[in-house]
Amino acid sequence: MGGEMNMKKRLLETKPDCRDYPFLDPDILAQRLLDMADIGKTENGGVTRFVYSEEELKAKELFRSWMEQAGLTVRKDDVGNLYGRLEGTNPDLPAVWTGSHLDTVPDGGAFDGALGCISSLMAVEAVIEEQGRLTHPVEVVVFIDEEGSRFGGGLLGSRMAMGEVTKEDLFQMRDDYDTTAAEAMKRCGHTPNKLKHCLVPPESIEAFLEVHVEQGKQLEQTDGSVGIVHGIAGPSWLEITLKGETDHAGNTPMDMRRDAAAAAAEIMTAVEAIPAGYSSTAVATIGKLTLTPNGSNVIAGRADLIVDIRDIEEDTRDAMIRHIEQTVLDIAEKRNVESETLLQVRIPPVPVPEWLQHRMESAAQMLGLPYQYLASGAGHDAMILGRYVPSGMIFVPSVEGRSHSPEEFTELKDCLDGTALLLETLKTVGG
Amino acid sequence: MGGEMNMKKRLLETKPDCRDYPFLDPDILAQRLLDMADIGKTENGGVTRFVYSEEELKAKELFRSWMEQAGLTVRKDDVGNLYGRLEGTNPDLPAVWTGSHLDTVPDGGAFDGALGCISSLMAVEAVIEEQGRLTHPVEVVVFIDEEGSRFGGGLLGSRMAMGEVTKEDLFQMRDDYDTTAAEAMKRCGHTPNKLKHCLVPPESIEAFLEVHVEQGKQLEQTDGSVGIVHGIAGPSWLEITLKGETDHAGNTPMDMRRDAAAAAAEIMTAVEAIPAGYSSTAVATIGKLTLTPNGSNVIAGRADLIVDIRDIEEDTRDAMIRHIEQTVLDIAEKRNVESETLLQVRIPPVPVPEWLQHRMESAAQMLGLPYQYLASGAGHDAMILGRYVPSGMIFVPSVEGRSHSPEEFTELKDCLDGTALLLETLKTVGG
Repeated sequence: MGGEMNMKKRLLETKPDCRDYPFLDPDILAQRLLDMADIGKTENGGVTRFVYSEEELKAKELFRSWMEQAGLTVRKDDVGNLYGRLEGTNPDLPAVWTGSHLDTVPDGGAFDGALGCISSLMAVEAVIEEQGRLTHPVEVVVFIDEEGSRFGGGLLGSRMAMGEVTKEDLFQMRDDYDTTAAEAMKRCGHTPNKLKHCLVPPESIEAFLEVHVEQGKQLEQTDGSVGIVHGIAGPSWLEITLKGETDHAGNTPMDMRRDAAAAAAEIMTAVEAIPAGYSSTAVATIGKLTLTPNGSNVIAGRADLIVDIRDIEEDTRDAMIRHIEQTVLDIAEKRNVESETLLQVRIPPVPVPEWLQHRMESAAQMLGLPYQYLASGAGHDAMILGRYVPSGMIFVPSVEGRSHSPEEFTELKDCLDGTALLLETLKTVGG
Repeated sequence: MGGEMNMKKRLLETKPDCRDYPFLDPDILAQRLLDMADIGKTENGGVTRFVYSEEELKAKELFRSWMEQAGLTVRKDDVGNLYGRLEGTNPDLPAVWTGSHLDTVPDGGAFDGALGCISSLMAVEAVIEEQGRLTHPVEVVVFIDEEGSRFGGGLLGSRMAMGEVTKEDLFQMRDDYDTTAAEAMKRCGHTPNKLKHCLVPPESIEAFLEVHVEQGKQLEQTDGSVGIVHGIAGPSWLEITLKGETDHAGNTPMDMRRDAAAAAAEIMTAVEAIPAGYSSTAVATIGKLTLTPNGSNVIAGRADLIVDIRDIEEDTRDAMIRHIEQTVLDIAEKRNVESETLLQVRIPPVPVPEWLQHRMESAAQMLGLPYQYLASGAGHDAMILGRYVPSGMIFVPSVEGRSHSPEEFTELKDCLDGTALLLETLKTVGG
């Protein structure tokens, strides 16, 4: 149960390193992160807040109260997304959106999602304090169910707002207790039939900005204080099934085998080398592999594996998929093993518009913040919004790259720098 | 439930192909295989007879009755091994042993073990009918627990007879219901404390001969009717643990990974190529691999795999083990992944003495049987006996190499040819 104290101690330890920003108070930022981490706290010091759970509702209520205290006009849409609006001096202009999510993976971290929401609110509070309002309206957004930990899928709130989810989908998605998403929504007082009411026309949005923890080690290892995301790599999952022949490991000479495990191994090694031929942001990962029957003295008759393929450019990502499919065919044919490939998931990558990248870069330069350009390998709500409106992301370093676990941590000074960069970007985009 | 009828039909289908051996009746051979397959029959058409189970005791009682009908002097030792002795014209000479086992793997086949026992008895019956007795005594042996399906390990009866098992071992071996081997023995009326009484001095044994199904496809694919085993490859199991770092598949560039799955794949491919450099009988198999956490969007932080390494020569087998250990070290170091290797099992291979190989070969030539020399990749009781006394094995073809499953099958003509070869070899070894 030491997680909470530990987090507080660790957060405040880096307070002396915080840069001085006139309208951003590191104590408030730290306290809000801690208060939010209290909701759904686990015994491991992590946080569990699934969509439509008591904890997630409580987290949104707390956030609503902060937005109301800040003087924003708050509304919850018909599926549970939360919006807090600061009117613009010209209320007819499209709104600049900024936000993230408050749901978590099971036993997740206190920063993933929560930091983005809190940073957004603090940036808007700073705008109010400094100048009252911007020309454009600004909306702080909390999307539901980014993680997909309860019903699978994920990015549900942003996809709903953009019209990517049908009513039928909500009746098909089920949690581990066989409750449909539609049923869970009803229990929270929402109406799946009113799904249309939560749609937001893209033309009403000027841009979307999201602060997020990196969930990787690039910033940490290059001493960058903040990261400017130039593109979000949509994941593709290629499922591969190899069928050879189950034989006795002792009684089958090497040249009489149809070994599915050996075929899988050759494919894995080949796949690992493929991204380097495409781009520096391309990645391909085989982290999931099941051999059948998986016995130490039996040649595997079957191997099931999944390749996770990503790049920020759709062309190179798709070219990699084709390259990997061909590699599987070639290796399987050479080894007289049957192969099947199935592209399970194929989310298009989303580039961040160059003008928005430059706004973030100019803001970082103005603030004197060391920054680095990088790709987001993980999907985020900004990946969904980015299909419809200009969307940008600011990353802050994850200590040791840890995320989706109680060990997730970002130093307070980095949280504050990310918030400051968001504030400056917001002012130039919405100003 | 069609398994039994199916087996009978399949067995009798090849009866017309049977060679004519004056003292060997294919109908009796078929009927005994069918009667034995009835004991412990499963609904899949397989057979389950674990050591010290009701089924195994019943199988031994049936076999005892056959041996008594044949006029053999039957005794059961203090652990359950069964012996049927045909006295020699010179009873002071060491006995020629021949036999196998009657226990099975779960849902196993009707030939593995049972055929060896029945062939041995029929060969001795033929000796009796043809000439009454040999110069040497002959003992038909049924070893308990060759498969190790209940307590693990296996080859228990032959290891006990040769003094390789201690009383302490029996109190440590446990089945799935937490019953120790010692307790199970007691329930069958045996006395673990009398373990010494079942010891057989090697000098009292002239040689051991075992007929067994090949459990591979070499005989089938080369049209060989019987196989003369020139050596039994002792298995070695090398356990490999690789520890890298669990990271997000999207947010970790290819050159910043410590991917345990990729390291495992490179090792698997390297290991597959190693046996060819040593001998034509050498094999190395990785059939068991577990990735952790085994998630499609997570770089594996850990891989656990087992390499099964075999050859009929100890030198080449051990050289392969060292080669594989070095390969693991090199690949792990190159990839900055931690590695550990542990040699879990290391059973010395047992060559069949050349003079015994030549006796079997001459016998095959005399019978006009097509034969083929081959190695046994699997362990058998002859592997244990072979450490102490000259031991030889005769293999008969397994249809499609299937074994340890209800699909295990050997044609009746092949069962009969194997028995005939055993009979002729017995006559020259014990004559």
